[in-house]
Amino acid sequence: MMPVIPFVSEVGGVERKAWKDALPEALSGIAQVKAFDDLTQVEREEATVAIVANPDPTKVASLPNLAWVQSLWAGVERLVAELPDTGPQIVRLADPQMAETMSEAVLAWSLYLHRDMPAYMRQQRDHVWQHHLLKTPQEVTIGVLGIGELGSASALRLKANGFNVLGWSRSRKTLKGIETFAGAEELGTVLARSDILVLLMPLTGDTRGLIGKQALASVKPGAKLINFARGPIIDTNALLAALDDCRVGHAVLDVFDQEPLETDHPFWSHPEVTVLPHISAPTITSTASAIVAQNIKQYLETGSIPQTVDRQRGY
Amino acid sequence: MMPVIPFVSEVGGVERKAWKDALPEALSGIAQVKAFDDLTQVEREEATVAIVANPDPTKVASLPNLAWVQSLWAGVERLVAELPDTGPQIVRLADPQMAETMSEAVLAWSLYLHRDMPAYMRQQRDHVWQHHLLKTPQEVTIGVLGIGELGSASALRLKANGFNVLGWSRSRKTLKGIETFAGAEELGTVLARSDILVLLMPLTGDTRGLIGKQALASVKPGAKLINFARGPIIDTNALLAALDDCRVGHAVLDVFDQEPLETDHPFWSHPEVTVLPHISAPTITSTASAIVAQNIKQYLETGSIPQTVDRQRGY
Repeated sequence: MMPVIPFVSEVGGVERKAWKDALPEALSGIAQVKAFDDLTQVEREEATVAIVANPDPTKVASLPNLAWVQSLWAGVERLVAELPDTGPQIVRLADPQMAETMSEAVLAWSLYLHRDMPAYMRQQRDHVWQHHLLKTPQEVTIGVLGIGELGSASALRLKANGFNVLGWSRSRKTLKGIETFAGAEELGTVLARSDILVLLMPLTGDTRGLIGKQALASVKPGAKLINFARGPIIDTNALLAALDDCRVGHAVLDVFDQEPLETDHPFWSHPEVTVLPHISAPTITSTASAIVAQNIKQYLETGSIPQTVDRQRGY
Repeated sequence: MMPVIPFVSEVGGVERKAWKDALPEALSGIAQVKAFDDLTQVEREEATVAIVANPDPTKVASLPNLAWVQSLWAGVERLVAELPDTGPQIVRLADPQMAETMSEAVLAWSLYLHRDMPAYMRQQRDHVWQHHLLKTPQEVTIGVLGIGELGSASALRLKANGFNVLGWSRSRKTLKGIETFAGAEELGTVLARSDILVLLMPLTGDTRGLIGKQALASVKPGAKLINFARGPIIDTNALLAALDDCRVGHAVLDVFDQEPLETDHPFWSHPEVTVLPHISAPTITSTASAIVAQNIKQYLETGSIPQTVDRQRGY
């Protein structure tokens, strides 16, 4: 008899529907995926692994024998905060397709800034025909803050398309052809040298509010920002002040303190803010489900759990 | 004594200033560059080569012994139309940096369409938070019409970034990893299969009006267009009709029948048209001047003229 894997999730709509189709298909012959509310008491007690996407923590807690949970998302800061330290281990989604998708988004919005698209859109609205100076990509430095799976794929993609790229991370890393920096003491160098800053670090105690008044005062004048990480990494009021005194030239924001962004938030109508509805790197259910299935298959056969989140670091 | 090379140009402003600085520097030690109006009668008679950028044809005609003219632009349809067949040979600017710059523009605006930026900009204006379905680039077919220097660099760049690319040209060409088509009889296939069509062919008798009512009726429903070639390749009224009945989903237009685009032209305010002021691939004076200098040096030393325009084909 196939083991039953609980699916614990509060996501709804088309997204829930997509997972309800994709997960059983990917796990067919390996395990039976069952929504939490459909589990019997015995199934709850026997479950040692569950698949989670924005789960209600009380539901996770009611599965007493879980060794680990497989998240369907790359960002797990809510899971880390809401599941007790004594609870199951947490496995993030590490989907190479997601790194592809994110690096495409980083390239797309870096080109959006490099090619002055916000200015040309405004000119169209006003029926104005005017050129802006174009630099070669070699003359433009892009600093990627956070060079994990998503950040390093993005840095390499930018480099392959001609940009001068700097990488920064908590602990020192090397990336072929890219100048890298590490730790709080080297952040200032990257901020001061970058024409475009791309935020791709995880949200942790260290990164919450990291891009605040002090950091924004040390960026290159007119530097542009792209936040594809998490809203609270940027201090909203400090960013609005830096935009208004032209210290920061433009901000492309895909993530916010509260999502969806409140309809009366000043970001919506700021001429130098581009608001995106958290779309930089949507999980692609087909490839993600295949990875989840592979992780679960290996666990069921060998008992080995994929690399788990370090709760101290938070990712 | 250094030979004098006439510079014949009606361009003005910052562009004229940039060339007046860059050309003498690149040609220093090889020849002396002199604006047409400053030439003596003897210098006019002795000139066998001139550098031209949007020249007054009567000025070119008043240089009786010109063997060839070096254009500072890649597009030479005006020169071909305005200089007599018995006049000097025409050499286009073939600057590898221009192919880099154009391929970057093609990638930038292909990503602009692929990532639904026009829709997200509209949503921001209306404070709307809503996702659009994202495809992988492998699921998106981009047809590049015209695969000369600029088109082939663009096609390869799109391919390197994951898109499925088709190439079309007047005469058959091969491009590594790219399915190519040729001639009028195979154009329909590319139109019908492409999600995004990129126009990069020269303006000739054959291409004028090529993207008209008939061609637009055969594109994939909802296909998007990018015109980085020349305005008259598209029939404006046919395009407006195709946009209005949603046959064409969006058009990014950088070139127009008349430039600057008339302030009351319907393109400016059409929700599915992006108007750009001819900025896809500006000539970069430093690299272009170096190429011009090399062509002139070789001619002065050996008498050999670089590859010239075929006046019958028009490019």
